[in-house]
Amino acid sequence: MPCLATSFVREEGEAIFRLLYTRGMAEQAPQAEQIGLVVEVRNGPGVLHRLTGIIFHHGGDITSVAILDNDRPVVSVFFEIGGGDIAVMEQEMQMMEGVRSVGRTTTLQKVYGKRLIIIGGGAQVGQVAIGAISEADRHNIRGERISVDTIPLVGEKNLADAVRAVARLPRAKALVLAGSLMGGDIEKAVREVRDKGLLVISLNMAGSVPEAADLVVSDPVQAGVMAVMAIADTASFNVARLKNRVF
Amino acid sequence: MPCLATSFVREEGEAIFRLLYTRGMAEQAPQAEQIGLVVEVRNGPGVLHRLTGIIFHHGGDITSVAILDNDRPVVSVFFEIGGGDIAVMEQEMQMMEGVRSVGRTTTLQKVYGKRLIIIGGGAQVGQVAIGAISEADRHNIRGERISVDTIPLVGEKNLADAVRAVARLPRAKALVLAGSLMGGDIEKAVREVRDKGLLVISLNMAGSVPEAADLVVSDPVQAGVMAVMAIADTASFNVARLKNRVF
Repeated sequence: MPCLATSFVREEGEAIFRLLYTRGMAEQAPQAEQIGLVVEVRNGPGVLHRLTGIIFHHGGDITSVAILDNDRPVVSVFFEIGGGDIAVMEQEMQMMEGVRSVGRTTTLQKVYGKRLIIIGGGAQVGQVAIGAISEADRHNIRGERISVDTIPLVGEKNLADAVRAVARLPRAKALVLAGSLMGGDIEKAVREVRDKGLLVISLNMAGSVPEAADLVVSDPVQAGVMAVMAIADTASFNVARLKNRVF
Repeated sequence: MPCLATSFVREEGEAIFRLLYTRGMAEQAPQAEQIGLVVEVRNGPGVLHRLTGIIFHHGGDITSVAILDNDRPVVSVFFEIGGGDIAVMEQEMQMMEGVRSVGRTTTLQKVYGKRLIIIGGGAQVGQVAIGAISEADRHNIRGERISVDTIPLVGEKNLADAVRAVARLPRAKALVLAGSLMGGDIEKAVREVRDKGLLVISLNMAGSVPEAADLVVSDPVQAGVMAVMAIADTASFNVARLKNRVF
């Protein structure tokens, strides 16, 4: 596979830089302790604006937010907040018009942790998932938190959209492309999300996607295992240090 | 299994009501077309408050919001907005201090759709995932969008936390508990998330969790398939109409 080899040599410098950069971000000083707040509030215009105003005025830094049951009369808004006077925020929210309840809860980062995303054809996504879930189990037992999230899809446009959307998924750290033929706009999308710091592993397959990936793996189970090793802090596996990028 | 059977008979009336209610919510008039907006903005206090203010003032209804790269100097905020004057919002956001770019994008609902969550021991989570991913593939080919998201975990507290947190995951529609022994606080958590309208399927296992679930399935692959069938609009499978709740 001379084409792949050339591509990897050419890109290696940049890849190492990017991966070290990403790793550097992961190793920077831990953020302030995050607190989860769930607010149940009557659905209506401006609710999120008023709630974020309360958090802002009491010095809170919102690191994550989710809106649930938006199609119902009472909506749940879930914040993860670092810093600020949480007790005062809670009190003010409780007095806000339409608010039914305010409660503290665990953060999704603590419960589900980092996410590995697997996208492609059903047969292969399933096999990659088997490897990834088994490996995540071994790390989660040692105190890690790694989730394995998947979607089986068909078609260049659907796949390219899904790859680009990984960059908008909270806590997504790596992507495995599991298929037999992927190229064109999917390759472009892979390069875009890699530029944003996402690690991309591709099965060895037809099309140009393997050339664009950080790592190419032939066995789907191994691809899943390697992807989890690459994002686990409890593993001593660093894609940037690999001499070979095709397995 | 007389204990299970009794439990199912006792709960059946309530279960049917709740499932029909959930289904009714799913079938209500579709919401206004959702537009995705990605805003890249210098990280700092009050950013979300100012952005939501712009959306509120121009009549937008925020159905989903996510904050990405919150540990970096430039943060991406991703909104899904129904209604309102999107073009004017874009213009005002572009003029907001610290904003680098504003762009439209596809919504996560369109790209990843409904989510099935699988939680439990690695070996069994992997087998349920195989069934669920294969079945999701078949529905996604026919125009559905179903994702299969998993986390392997050990320990009553971790599992109970993860079950409760499913209620805070956007687009989560059903949960499969895949293990060999689950009870205690996990059972409580199952009853709580069922009360919030989530469909819960349990493998046939030791402990009290099967008694608390909507459906009990012995074969993990079939459990994954049934879970996807239950949330797919392209399937004619309705848990509420089943006479048997243990398979």
